[in-house]
Amino acid sequence: MNVNAICTALAQLREQAPLVVNITNYVVMNNSANALLAIGASPIMAHSREEMTEMMAFAGALVINIGTLDRTWIERMTFAVEQANAAGKPVVLDPVGCGATSLRAHTARQLAALAKHLTIRGNASEIIALAGQASQGKGVDSQDPSETALEAAKQLVEQYQAQVVISGATDYIVSNDGTFVLNNGHPMMTQVTGTGCSLSAITGAFAAIGETSGLAAAAVMGVAGEIAAEQAKGPGSLQVALLDALYNLDENTLTQRLKLSQLA
Amino acid sequence: MNVNAICTALAQLREQAPLVVNITNYVVMNNSANALLAIGASPIMAHSREEMTEMMAFAGALVINIGTLDRTWIERMTFAVEQANAAGKPVVLDPVGCGATSLRAHTARQLAALAKHLTIRGNASEIIALAGQASQGKGVDSQDPSETALEAAKQLVEQYQAQVVISGATDYIVSNDGTFVLNNGHPMMTQVTGTGCSLSAITGAFAAIGETSGLAAAAVMGVAGEIAAEQAKGPGSLQVALLDALYNLDENTLTQRLKLSQLA
Amino acid sequence: MNVNAICTALAQLREQAPLVVNITNYVVMNNSANALLAIGASPIMAHSREEMTEMMAFAGALVINIGTLDRTWIERMTFAVEQANAAGKPVVLDPVGCGATSLRAHTARQLAALAKHLTIRGNASEIIALAGQASQGKGVDSQDPSETALEAAKQLVEQYQAQVVISGATDYIVSNDGTFVLNNGHPMMTQVTGTGCSLSAITGAFAAIGETSGLAAAAVMGVAGEIAAEQAKGPGSLQVALLDALYNLDENTLTQRLKLSQLA
Repeated sequence: MNVNAICTALAQLREQAPLVVNITNYVVMNNSANALLAIGASPIMAHSREEMTEMMAFAGALVINIGTLDRTWIERMTFAVEQANAAGKPVVLDPVGCGATSLRAHTARQLAALAKHLTIRGNASEIIALAGQASQGKGVDSQDPSETALEAAKQLVEQYQAQVVISGATDYIVSNDGTFVLNNGHPMMTQVTGTGCSLSAITGAFAAIGETSGLAAAAVMGVAGEIAAEQAKGPGSLQVALLDALYNLDENTLTQRLKLSQLA
Repeated sequence: MNVNAICTALAQLREQAPLVVNITNYVVMNNSANALLAIGASPIMAHSREEMTEMMAFAGALVINIGTLDRTWIERMTFAVEQANAAGKPVVLDPVGCGATSLRAHTARQLAALAKHLTIRGNASEIIALAGQASQGKGVDSQDPSETALEAAKQLVEQYQAQVVISGATDYIVSNDGTFVLNNGHPMMTQVTGTGCSLSAITGAFAAIGETSGLAAAAVMGVAGEIAAEQAKGPGSLQVALLDALYNLDENTLTQRLKLSQLA
Repeated sequence: MNVNAICTALAQLREQAPLVVNITNYVVMNNSANALLAIGASPIMAHSREEMTEMMAFAGALVINIGTLDRTWIERMTFAVEQANAAGKPVVLDPVGCGATSLRAHTARQLAALAKHLTIRGNASEIIALAGQASQGKGVDSQDPSETALEAAKQLVEQYQAQVVISGATDYIVSNDGTFVLNNGHPMMTQVTGTGCSLSAITGAFAAIGETSGLAAAAVMGVAGEIAAEQAKGPGSLQVALLDALYNLDENTLTQRLKLSQLA
C-alpha cells in the first residue's frame, strides 16, 4: 500500500461513510465519535446484548476498546465480537492498559482469539504485554519505544491471524505482507487522552471499507496530529485542532506530509 | 410564540437557572452538561433509583436520551419518568437511533407512552421510526430530510399528547397549536457528536420554566450553532465555539438572526 | 507551605509523573484524564473489582468522585478505598452534589470514614452538607459562599482526620496545620462542567507525591483557570485554554500570580 492507495481509501471512506459500532471506554466515547465524524464515518456507540445482532448486520466494522473494563463490559464485548464474526465484519481491538493488570491482558487475549477478522492497535507496552512478554507500561501509558514491540507484533500476527498497528513516536504496521513504518505525528499527542483510541476508531472506519491493515488510519491520524500540533498551544487546543485537521485533510496535504517507508 | 416571547423565555431561563436532571448517553454527558451551563441552566446527571424521587422533587425537568441504551438504563429511565410524572415535571425524550434497532424503537415508544408532559426531540429518521413508519437512518444519523417527518410528528403529537421537534437543515416544531419552521443552524453541526443531544438538554431547561414546545430551545441552538459555524475551522472548533455562542447569545443577535415562520 | 514549596511540588510531580487511579463520574472522565495529563501526571480510569488490588499496588493515589453514583459504583468505590488503605495510598474524595440527596450524603460519609489517608475537595455546599449542616446547593452547584463552609471543614478535619479543600471564589485549604486562603481562579470556571472534578483529580496527583493538603493542586488550578479565563471568549474556549494553561504553567507565572495567605 502506497500513498496513492491511502488517498483512494480516504476518498472511499468519505464517499461511503461507513457505520462503525464502538464498544469503547467511558473516557473517550466522545473523542472517538467525533474523530469518526470528522474523518467522514458514521459512529454509533452501542453495547446492549439486545440490539447487537441487528446492529452488526448493518454495521461496517466493530471497534472494541478495553479502557474501562469490568465484568459486564467483558460479556458484552465477547457477544459483540461473536456477532461481528457471524456477520463477517472486521473487528479492531484496542487493548488499553493491557500490561497494567492481568484482567486486561487475559481479556484482550480472549477477545483477540475470538475475532475472525482482526486488527490490533496499541502502544508498544500494550502490544508487548498482549504477546505475553514483559512490558514497561505505566497504567495506560507506554514506556517502551515502539520498535521494541516489533517482535511481539509479529507474534500476534501469527498467533491471531491479525494485522497489528504499534503506535508511538514511530508507528509500525505489521502484517503477513511485511512491515510499514510511519514517521508522522507529534509527541504532544500523548498528552491528550484518547488519541490512540481515536486512531483505533478510525482504523475501524477503514476496515469497514476493506482496508484492514490499519495503515491508512495511522497515516491519516499521524498527519492530522502533526498539523494540529503545529497550531496548538497545548493539549487542550491540540484536541480541538486534531478534529479540524481530520475534517480538512486533503489528498495533497496527505501526500506531501506522509513519511512512509517499509522495513526490508 | 414569536421572537419576543423566545427572548423573554431565554431571559427567564437565565434568571431562574433551573435544575435539569439528565439520564443521557455516555457519549454526550459532558456536552449536555456544558450546553446547559452555557445557556444558564443548572445540569445534573443522575440515574440512581435510590435518589430519583428526591431529585425530581426539586428538579425543573427530566431529559431522557436513549443513545447508549441497555437493560439497566431502561429500568432507570422508566423509574425516572414515573417520578417526573408524580412530581408534575415535564419530560423531554431524545429517541437516539430509534430506527436503528427494535430495542430502541420499542423503548422509546414505552417511555413516550409513560410520560405525562412530554416533548420529543429527534432527527427526521428518529421521528419517522418512532411513529412506526419506514425511515432511512444510518445508525444515529438521519438520512431523511426533516420535512418528510412532518406527518410522523403530527401522529406523535396526537398519540402521546406530546410536542415534537424535528431537527435538521430546517427544524419543525409541531404541536396542537400548529407548526413552526426554523431555518437557522449549519450543516457542519451534524459533524459534531451530541449537538442534537445538547438541543434536547436545552429543551429540558426551557421546559423547566414552562416553555415546553421546544421552539425557544431550537431557536437558541440554531442561532448559536450558526454563529459558531461561521467562526469554526472544522468540527473541533465548532464544538468549542458553540458553547461560547450559547453563553454570549443576546436578545439583539437572536432577534436579528432568527428565521422563524409558521406553516399555514 | 509557601509558593516555593508549591513550585517544588509541581516540579516533582512533572518529574515523577505519578499514576493516579480515578473512579469518577461519566460526565468528567475525559476532563479529569486530560487535566492530569496536562499537569504531567499519568491518569487511569478503572473501577473493576477484579483489577483494583493490583492497580492500587502500583498507583500513587486514588481519586473517588460520586457525581454519577449508583449501587454498583458505591460497591466499587468502597472496595477501591479498602485497597488504597491496604496499600497505604492516599485517597481524594469529591462529594459531588452531596447536599442534593441523602444517597450522596450517606455514601460520601461512609467513604470518608473508610479512607485512612484522606483529602476532601468540594464546593461550599458539599462540604457543609457532608458535615451534616444545612446547605443551599442546587444539584451539583454551590449557592453558599466558600467562607460559610469553614466551620464544617474544620469539623471534617477532626471527624475524619482529613485535609479539606473548599473551592469557590476564594479557596480555603483546611487542616490541622491551619487554614490557607487562595484568591485565584475566575467566576466563569463555574460555567464549565468538571473544573472542580479536575481539581480533585490533580489533588490526587499531588497527594501521590506526598503533598496531601490539596494546596498545591488548588494553587495550580486557580492560576491556570485565571490565565485561561483571560484568554477565553466563553466556557467552551475556557475549557480548552485551561488544559493549555495547566500544561504551560511555569514557576515564574505561578509565583507572580499566586494570591496565597493564611488565616490567623
